[in-house]
Amino acid sequence: MTNQPNIRPTILVTNDDGYYAGGLRKLISIVRKFGKVIVVAGEQSMSGMGHAITIKTPLRVKTVAKEPDYEEYICNGTPVDCVKLGEQVVIGGKPDLVVSGINHGSNASINVIYSGTMAAVIEACIDGIPAVGFSLCDYSHKADFSHVDRFVEQLVSGVLKNGLKQGVCLNVNIPPLPSVPIKGIRVCRQANARWVEEFDSRQDPRGVDYHWLTGRFENDDLSEETDQWALDNGYVSVVPVHYDLTAYSMIDEIKKWNLK
Amino acid sequence: MTNQPNIRPTILVTNDDGYYAGGLRKLISIVRKFGKVIVVAGEQSMSGMGHAITIKTPLRVKTVAKEPDYEEYICNGTPVDCVKLGEQVVIGGKPDLVVSGINHGSNASINVIYSGTMAAVIEACIDGIPAVGFSLCDYSHKADFSHVDRFVEQLVSGVLKNGLKQGVCLNVNIPPLPSVPIKGIRVCRQANARWVEEFDSRQDPRGVDYHWLTGRFENDDLSEETDQWALDNGYVSVVPVHYDLTAYSMIDEIKKWNLK
Repeated sequence: MTNQPNIRPTILVTNDDGYYAGGLRKLISIVRKFGKVIVVAGEQSMSGMGHAITIKTPLRVKTVAKEPDYEEYICNGTPVDCVKLGEQVVIGGKPDLVVSGINHGSNASINVIYSGTMAAVIEACIDGIPAVGFSLCDYSHKADFSHVDRFVEQLVSGVLKNGLKQGVCLNVNIPPLPSVPIKGIRVCRQANARWVEEFDSRQDPRGVDYHWLTGRFENDDLSEETDQWALDNGYVSVVPVHYDLTAYSMIDEIKKWNLK
Repeated sequence: MTNQPNIRPTILVTNDDGYYAGGLRKLISIVRKFGKVIVVAGEQSMSGMGHAITIKTPLRVKTVAKEPDYEEYICNGTPVDCVKLGEQVVIGGKPDLVVSGINHGSNASINVIYSGTMAAVIEACIDGIPAVGFSLCDYSHKADFSHVDRFVEQLVSGVLKNGLKQGVCLNVNIPPLPSVPIKGIRVCRQANARWVEEFDSRQDPRGVDYHWLTGRFENDDLSEETDQWALDNGYVSVVPVHYDLTAYSMIDEIKKWNLK
């Protein structure tokens, strides 16, 4: 019997902007230094898909690349589907790490709720796999990712070395260029902000109304402990995230309602 | 100046099974006793849509009914879109209460993460509106809702009377018939269970693989404090839910990683 100290970790990579996104390519290039990389990404952009899963149509997976240290697949599913397919259909087991992103646009604060990038991470976390989501606070398709390497590397390295407690994953957001020099990394809590909807209502050529969802970000939670403060002040934010949505502080209060 | 003690609350009703679902019709019939009801539901079933929003296509709203105490609209959006459209396009302000469901199928335990029903509730909660999601633990389209009235009424009445703390909403699950007589209502925490995926993989007539997402529910969290225990033992479960996903217990631990 020999030890096998040089076995490299298997890292599953996905995102919600689609397989062609610059942020995904950047993330792949960084994590290939750490292990065997298996990419399962969507054919289409799935921004704003939240934790959606595909149950009404069948899923299909196409092989794009299959090398000893690198495999790439595209599918017709959501980011959560990508993780499920990656585990069950592609790998046939659990990877050592799941990374998602790098998202084009912030997933800090309330954005975590709507984010397909973070839904993939939470899905891996439910399955007991250490997982990290990375986002750059720049929505442009041509966003500049040239400054992100050292932050992504530290986080990937930190998670591979320290692990994460069962039920906890990480939401990492990086300020956009030209916010350099970035001051460093801050571990934070999720800011309690929200989007205020402002539908852009129009009429089609037949005179029928239609509505485009738009909105503006409104943040009254200005604490220095929040991810939004960190980003606004030139720091990379790291929020440990869990999927137990129980508001424990309200349990005793609702018990007093005397429901029966 | 006169007091207006008799103004009835405005209640926005939505769901994720579509406007034609029996569970929605049941919920409407119950909440009409409590106030003016405005229904905004999807044209299609949106089960498993999680917190998805529609940003790549425009939204359309059609008027089905418009009476003094009752309005009904259908739209082409997700459950979260229904809430946003209800507030901004239909009402032009905030309703006094949002109720969602009654879902055909459990949203207890980890199902809350995938649930369109609960995403609509959480969206309302983000907007500062008291909100409750109702689900019956029976996935059938023909599910029997005849035993739910007294539980829905108690919860709607309790929320209208007591309010809910900002940032907290309710996830209510009801055992299916024939689990009667139901023993009562229990206020619980979310059980830490998960779905184990089991893709049903097939070949189409052209010989190309495709995969149907299926799975089985696996629960190792057997505490009597959980929603799953309550349901398994004949109780209606009520879990207070919030949208702050921060895993506070991990903040100090990750700070020790010395990220910079």
